[in-house]
Amino acid sequence: MSILVINAGSSSIKYSIYNTKTLQLIDHGLIEEIRDHHEGFEVMRTQLQLHNIDITKIDAIGHRVVHGGERFHEPARVDDALIREITALIPLAPLHNPANIEGIQAARAIAPSVPNFAVFDTAFHQTMPPYAYRYPLAHDLYESFHVRRYGFHGTSHHYVSIQASDLLQKPIESLNLITFHIGNGVSACAIQKGRSIDTSMGMTPLEGLMMGTRCGSIDPSIIGYLMHEKGMSIEEVDTLLNKKSGLLAIAGTNDLRSIIEARKSGDANAALAIDMFAYRLRKQLGAYMSVLRGVDAVIFTGGIGEHSPLIHEMVCEGLEHMGICLDRAKNSAFETRIHDEASTVALLVIPTDEERQIALYVQSLLSA
Amino acid sequence: MSILVINAGSSSIKYSIYNTKTLQLIDHGLIEEIRDHHEGFEVMRTQLQLHNIDITKIDAIGHRVVHGGERFHEPARVDDALIREITALIPLAPLHNPANIEGIQAARAIAPSVPNFAVFDTAFHQTMPPYAYRYPLAHDLYESFHVRRYGFHGTSHHYVSIQASDLLQKPIESLNLITFHIGNGVSACAIQKGRSIDTSMGMTPLEGLMMGTRCGSIDPSIIGYLMHEKGMSIEEVDTLLNKKSGLLAIAGTNDLRSIIEARKSGDANAALAIDMFAYRLRKQLGAYMSVLRGVDAVIFTGGIGEHSPLIHEMVCEGLEHMGICLDRAKNSAFETRIHDEASTVALLVIPTDEERQIALYVQSLLSA
Repeated sequence: MSILVINAGSSSIKYSIYNTKTLQLIDHGLIEEIRDHHEGFEVMRTQLQLHNIDITKIDAIGHRVVHGGERFHEPARVDDALIREITALIPLAPLHNPANIEGIQAARAIAPSVPNFAVFDTAFHQTMPPYAYRYPLAHDLYESFHVRRYGFHGTSHHYVSIQASDLLQKPIESLNLITFHIGNGVSACAIQKGRSIDTSMGMTPLEGLMMGTRCGSIDPSIIGYLMHEKGMSIEEVDTLLNKKSGLLAIAGTNDLRSIIEARKSGDANAALAIDMFAYRLRKQLGAYMSVLRGVDAVIFTGGIGEHSPLIHEMVCEGLEHMGICLDRAKNSAFETRIHDEASTVALLVIPTDEERQIALYVQSLLSA
Repeated sequence: MSILVINAGSSSIKYSIYNTKTLQLIDHGLIEEIRDHHEGFEVMRTQLQLHNIDITKIDAIGHRVVHGGERFHEPARVDDALIREITALIPLAPLHNPANIEGIQAARAIAPSVPNFAVFDTAFHQTMPPYAYRYPLAHDLYESFHVRRYGFHGTSHHYVSIQASDLLQKPIESLNLITFHIGNGVSACAIQKGRSIDTSMGMTPLEGLMMGTRCGSIDPSIIGYLMHEKGMSIEEVDTLLNKKSGLLAIAGTNDLRSIIEARKSGDANAALAIDMFAYRLRKQLGAYMSVLRGVDAVIFTGGIGEHSPLIHEMVCEGLEHMGICLDRAKNSAFETRIHDEASTVALLVIPTDEERQIALYVQSLLSA
C-alpha cells in the first residue's frame, strides 16, 4: 500500500515511494538522460521491482506540475479534461509543463488502473489578493492573456509553514510567516494566518530574487536594450536571463558552496555575487515585514537556505529595529532556532520536503 | 545677476530664473508645442525681455540632464567634450537625453558668453555600492554595455534630504532617510548618512514602483510572452510598458485625484489601482527599512507624495512593529510632520523643488 511521487523534468524522472498510511519513505531514485518518459517509467518499473514494488498495484501517483494557472487552487485528480487544462497552460510555463504532462501520460500508460493526482507549484499562492497578483498592465493582458503573478515553490512554502506551526506549537491559522526557499531557484512567500498573500516569483519563475542561473527582477527595459544594442533575439535574451545569469553570471558558478570558498580566498566576483544575493533576500525580508503587520517567524529552507549560516547572517544581522535578532552562535551551530531571546520574530531553519508534501496531499485526497 | 534653470523636454521648455545671490525665484514659465529648441529659446528670450531680463547677460544656465551614466557624480560645466559624453549616453536614455542636449545647444547658440552647467538626475545615486547597482547579469553587459542601476529623480531626492536635515536640525551626514518621490514618475531612495545607497528606478526610469503610465518592475518573461502570444514587436511592448501601463492601465487615467474620487464612488478598478499603487510603495518602504539598519525619517514628496494623505496612510498604517506610527489627524491636516510621539521614525511631507536644487548646484559651482 504505497504512494508514488513523480517529479518529471525534460530529461529526468525523480521518484519517491511512501507508505500510504505512515508516509514512511520506502524508496526513491533519479532516472536521468531519458529519451522519453515512457522509457523512463519502464526503467523505474524495473527499479521498483527490485524492491518488490509493483507499480500497477500502488494506491496512487502524485505528480508535481509546475503551472496550474488560476484554475487550480489545490491538488486535483487527473483525468482527460485536467490534462487538457494543463496543456492549455503551456504558454505560461513552456520550460516545465510539457515534461510534467509527459510524466502523467507515461504513468497512465504503465499503470492504467492507478489514480493519478496533479500537485501544482502555483496552487498554494492562489490565495493572494488582486493587488498583489495583478501587474500594473492593461486589463486585457490579464483577462485574455492570463498575465498575472502566480508564484511557484508553493508546495515547499506550504510544507515548511506547517513544520513551523508544529515547532512553534501554534495553529497555522494564527501564524504570520515569511518563508525563503533558497536553492538553485529562489523564492520568498508572505504567509498571513497560514495563507500565501504574496510571493516573489511571478507569471514565471524568472521574477523576483537572484537565483543560481536566473537574474530575477531587472529593469524590463534591459531586454529591448540588449535586442537593439547587441542584436540579440528575444529567444536569446530569454535564455540569457534564465540560464546564464544569477550567481553563475557574477561568480562563474552557481554552486554557492564553492562561491563561499572562493570568497574566502579573496575572489572579488565571488564576494560580489554573495553580497548581491544576500542583499536582495534582505530587501525581500523587509518588504514582507511591512506587508504582514507583525511576523511570528522567518523560515529558511532549500539547499542553500538550510545549509548557509553565512546567508542567514547577511540577511538578518542589524535588523534589531525591526524586531529581528539573530543568535550568531546558534546560527553557526546549524540549530533549528537561530534567533536570540530579544527577538520578537522567530528565525527558523527547516528542511523542506516537497515530495513528502505531495504524498501528504495525495494521502488526504485518497481518504476524502 | 541671475541663474536660468532649463528643463528641456522633447516638445517643451520649462524655465525658472533665480537671483544668483539670494536664490529668490524671479520668473518662471513653460513653453509648449515647440518645433525645435532654438525656436523655443527665442520665445523664452522674448518672455524674459518683458521682465527686463537679457538672456545674454545672466550669470549661468543650469540644465537638467536625465542620464549622466557612470561618468557624472555631480553637476558639470558644459563644453564640447561634455556634450559628446551626454550624446554617447543616448542609448541608455533615448526618450530623454536628446531633448536635454538640444536644450543645451540652443542655450549656447542664443547666449554664447554665458556658462552652462549640466545637472544629472542620476548623479546623486552614484554613491550606490556595487551590490545595489549591479544586476545579476553577465559581467560583459555591465563592462561593455553599461547595463547597471543608475536611478533617477536624484536632484529631488537630494533636495528633500537637505530639507529634512533642516527640519530635524541634524547634519545630513548623520541621517538615514527613505525618500519617496511620487508624481507621474515614482521612485524611492535609501539614503545612509546623507548618501544614496539604493534607489528603485534602474538602468532606465521604467524599473521599480508603479507609476502614472509606467508599469515599474514586472516579470521580465512577460516581454517575450507578449511578443510570442500577441505578435507584438519589442518597440510596441516598450511603448506599452512606458506609456500605457501603471495607474492609467488599471484605472483608465493617471490622474490620482480623479482616481481617488472614482474610488469613493465605488469604481472597482480605481480601488484596485490605488491598492496596487500603495502596496508597492509599502513593500519598498519595508525593503529600505531592512537596508538602512535604523531610519531617522521617511519623506514623501512630489505631486502625489505631497498632497495625498490617503497614500501616506495606506503605506504607513500598521507598521508599529517597525517603529513607524502615523498620526492620522496630522496627516489629514496636511501637516509637515505626520508621525505621532511613539514613532521612532519621523514621517515628513516635504515639497520638492528640483529647479531650486539645480540653481543651488549652479550657485555653488559659480562660487567655486
